[in-house]
Amino acid sequence: MEYSIGIDIGGTKIATGIVGQQGNVRYKRIHPTPNSTNREIVDLLKQTVSEYMKLATEENINLVSVGIGSAGQIDYKNGRILSGTVNIKDWNNIDIRESLSHTTNLPIYLDNDANTFAIAEHQLGSGKGVDDLVCLTLGTGIGGGIVSDGNVIRGKWGGAAELGHMSVNFNGPDCNCGSKGCIETYASGTGIANRMREKLNSIDAGKRISYTEHPDMLTSKEVFEWNKTGLPEAKEVIDQAITALSFGIVNMIHTFNPSLIIFGGGLAEANRWLIEEVQNKVNAIGMPSLVKGVEMKVSKLGYDTGLIGAAYQVWATSK
Amino acid sequence: MEYSIGIDIGGTKIATGIVGQQGNVRYKRIHPTPNSTNREIVDLLKQTVSEYMKLATEENINLVSVGIGSAGQIDYKNGRILSGTVNIKDWNNIDIRESLSHTTNLPIYLDNDANTFAIAEHQLGSGKGVDDLVCLTLGTGIGGGIVSDGNVIRGKWGGAAELGHMSVNFNGPDCNCGSKGCIETYASGTGIANRMREKLNSIDAGKRISYTEHPDMLTSKEVFEWNKTGLPEAKEVIDQAITALSFGIVNMIHTFNPSLIIFGGGLAEANRWLIEEVQNKVNAIGMPSLVKGVEMKVSKLGYDTGLIGAAYQVWATSK
Repeated sequence: MEYSIGIDIGGTKIATGIVGQQGNVRYKRIHPTPNSTNREIVDLLKQTVSEYMKLATEENINLVSVGIGSAGQIDYKNGRILSGTVNIKDWNNIDIRESLSHTTNLPIYLDNDANTFAIAEHQLGSGKGVDDLVCLTLGTGIGGGIVSDGNVIRGKWGGAAELGHMSVNFNGPDCNCGSKGCIETYASGTGIANRMREKLNSIDAGKRISYTEHPDMLTSKEVFEWNKTGLPEAKEVIDQAITALSFGIVNMIHTFNPSLIIFGGGLAEANRWLIEEVQNKVNAIGMPSLVKGVEMKVSKLGYDTGLIGAAYQVWATSK
Repeated sequence: MEYSIGIDIGGTKIATGIVGQQGNVRYKRIHPTPNSTNREIVDLLKQTVSEYMKLATEENINLVSVGIGSAGQIDYKNGRILSGTVNIKDWNNIDIRESLSHTTNLPIYLDNDANTFAIAEHQLGSGKGVDDLVCLTLGTGIGGGIVSDGNVIRGKWGGAAELGHMSVNFNGPDCNCGSKGCIETYASGTGIANRMREKLNSIDAGKRISYTEHPDMLTSKEVFEWNKTGLPEAKEVIDQAITALSFGIVNMIHTFNPSLIIFGGGLAEANRWLIEEVQNKVNAIGMPSLVKGVEMKVSKLGYDTGLIGAAYQVWATSK
């Protein structure tokens, strides 16, 4: 069996491992994402690849590639990080392929982590055998990956599928991308916390205290908890997140005519009821011929999807 | 040289012709769209195909296909009209391929008219040699066609690229698709007229008279004229159309990472300055790495684009 080294680079952790062609994770390590310099991250990658190669030789594992998925904008053809998220220190203009080429002779694949998520789900997960699907990862931000007629949609240089930056309200809150009312501003972890903070800052101090003494430190997790206990401002924020997500997904369905939407990311996995609410709203507002029968599922591969998808690029592209 | 019969079915007219592989229109006729029954339209298609076949035999023209582009939702694999626009009488559930198969032995192609527009522009027009482009036809409604990595995006059954029904304001006006604030509700001919009518109905009668005595009969053409003469309500409506269109196009650029946007349709051709305004706004609000360098052009093939694209399906799919 062929194996591939997978590396999944996120804002808080870097998952690495050796993954088999059936999606089996043979070795796995989790590192906290270094936050001093980008050099430190690149060094970690080099060291990891070097160690896994040694291990593979010892254990007679047939390694065929190194596959990396990273947050941020990626020039996947040239194997370069163009610009990362604010969550990774100086994650800009880094020629990953070049840097690793001194460590290994294996072919090196690099893609956006939402694309590698889509690759994993399409090849091995809920999207297996499905030609038209849209993936959304709901976490700190919102990432997107699209498979259309069996192909990952990448665009001119690989910057496609920035679905978190689909605006559903041109009068909405400013997004860090420059636009307004992007679904990320309403329905990501950061967006939900920001919208709640705005609400708390606009109500009187006495009422605010029933929520928290520290609005600046609140997280989306708390907002979901407050929503569960019926606190009205939290309910408004969560309802608005559902509305924004639903309008965004209707836009995606009108654009791609998919048969499946797959959700991933911590926020989706912790709040599966949310997906059901979104499905109902999407069915109510979209064009019936297009939204009818579109399934919505949470990632089947779970926690390892990013790692598996990163490793899997070599097999996905050769099909 | 190979030739193909092209048929472009719109709400007000049906253009038919014999088109050569270089995009040359050898014969052309324009018919008003019959508005009594859908049977009458199908009969017109049969008669036209039959006459063009006779003509081709007489003149020794090498016909290889019949290609049809139609407004509405199309099951392009099976050659069926699923549901049309309100502009074409009973344009639902019509098996065009089956109906015409008794008239001709030529292969019959059927697609949405915005897709055939995209095919024409991609194969012969402003999009020649461009792998990633988005087409928008601005007319009575707004249609969309997408080419990604050289392929027309169709989705599960051909319903993709309903870009007119991309919402950019979940608090916006109701759209006939079921959603709210779709770009069609702001920036199509019908949308511009509707938004202007709302404005006129909300201002006092004395001021309204400076526009028109018959708000119910106004068209987008008048709104553009009033805007030119500086009437403030018209300016607001046109500004809002530009805003909606710009946010929608930013969404499309974030989704597809294209290098080119091509505009067609009467509204774009009559108001080229609008495209320039949209380009400026898109550059101001989109992610710089994605919007930078995206060109915006008005269709090069002009009036015959729909006809040429309809005929051209046979060659586009065999490439």
